[in-house]
Amino acid sequence: MQAENTTLNSFDPHVSVDCVILGYDGESLKVLLSRQGEEDPNSQYNSLKLPGRLLYADEDLDDAANDILNQLTGSQNHYVRQFRAFGSPTRTNNPKDVLWLENAIKQKIGRIVTIAYLSLVRINNRTHRTFAGHDAAWYKVSELPELAFDHSTIIREVLKELEMLSVQQPHLIFEMLPPKFTALQLRRVHEQICGHELDVRNFSKFIMNKPYIVPLDEWEQNVSHRAARFYKFQVGKVKL
Amino acid sequence: MQAENTTLNSFDPHVSVDCVILGYDGESLKVLLSRQGEEDPNSQYNSLKLPGRLLYADEDLDDAANDILNQLTGSQNHYVRQFRAFGSPTRTNNPKDVLWLENAIKQKIGRIVTIAYLSLVRINNRTHRTFAGHDAAWYKVSELPELAFDHSTIIREVLKELEMLSVQQPHLIFEMLPPKFTALQLRRVHEQICGHELDVRNFSKFIMNKPYIVPLDEWEQNVSHRAARFYKFQVGKVKL
Repeated sequence: MQAENTTLNSFDPHVSVDCVILGYDGESLKVLLSRQGEEDPNSQYNSLKLPGRLLYADEDLDDAANDILNQLTGSQNHYVRQFRAFGSPTRTNNPKDVLWLENAIKQKIGRIVTIAYLSLVRINNRTHRTFAGHDAAWYKVSELPELAFDHSTIIREVLKELEMLSVQQPHLIFEMLPPKFTALQLRRVHEQICGHELDVRNFSKFIMNKPYIVPLDEWEQNVSHRAARFYKFQVGKVKL
Repeated sequence: MQAENTTLNSFDPHVSVDCVILGYDGESLKVLLSRQGEEDPNSQYNSLKLPGRLLYADEDLDDAANDILNQLTGSQNHYVRQFRAFGSPTRTNNPKDVLWLENAIKQKIGRIVTIAYLSLVRINNRTHRTFAGHDAAWYKVSELPELAFDHSTIIREVLKELEMLSVQQPHLIFEMLPPKFTALQLRRVHEQICGHELDVRNFSKFIMNKPYIVPLDEWEQNVSHRAARFYKFQVGKVKL
């Protein structure tokens, strides 16, 4: 291309990294969101957003994503990968978002290109404790409130990708599941990824046909309904 | 995250879009490269690079990639998708690259985050003619010269991705092949993607097992070796 042509129209957008951190608490598929401001109905900006920040001068994109994740979860052992860059000029259409960011970074903001990362984590008590210091919390993906910037779109696109990945790289789903899970839990997480109910009988066949989903000789305890069997994910049995 | 923390270290990198345009001429897998300057051994910058440019103020990332592709190939009907963002601080380590870009855009350059796109095209006479106006040409991926910025790394990463995609989404390979192709041509393109030779007998079995690779009642004409059969790719027969 003629780099000379770019003089007229090119410009310097800000670059940020945002993380779509998904987890499953045994019932609901959830995404970790942080708050732009105090939870106050009179606040000029109080939307929820994906955890993220502007890129620092000395770090690579992956470093920024890992730093955000580590700060939030206190652990470096999560599945994380770059998902996609989002750079539409309409990302900053909401003046509240721009005002929030300009006040936060004390700079004028024109456009922001963000590199979105996808991370899958297990929800447990330890991660809950760490989030508190960052004003972050889990929200059900099926009942998301209004989000800042284009973060709703980013989450929707991530879920579409995860639906495809759950077929092509089925082991990824187990990054979010507890070490022992029931068939119902596994079905529910798949249903919430694809956004619709799955046929119970077909799903039972699906489980039986997968050598990496191994039935255990353990059943639920102290439940009012019929106790369900536990399964585990067996690494090495999945065909990558 | 605490957006307040970013004041100290955040900065405004440039954002560019670069396209890895791959094609197959019946023998070699090739990538389209453009030249930073005149082909002159005394030039201060004469490296080859991926076609690309800085993002314009009013366009989305996909728009920029499509614009680059359309200008080069004169066609809007190519497979193209966002591949990955590259943003290492070391991308601009070579002073020749920085000098070239600063002279081209008449601005100081610090860091550049680039969004790389992957496109698969058929190499034919029409595309050849259009390239000439852009000082762009096809180069064999197996014999790449030194490239500007981290463009060699980007191409290597794209080939790794394409190797994975050729299993998960096999129809993509046929975007580069002529409408009729021989088994040898199909094997060669797979070999050049994965970077090593494939077993001939296993590959023949692979072809026979795929309902979307359909043998034709046509054979090569006027060849000195034994005439090979032609195959075609049948849309709708591939399980997506």
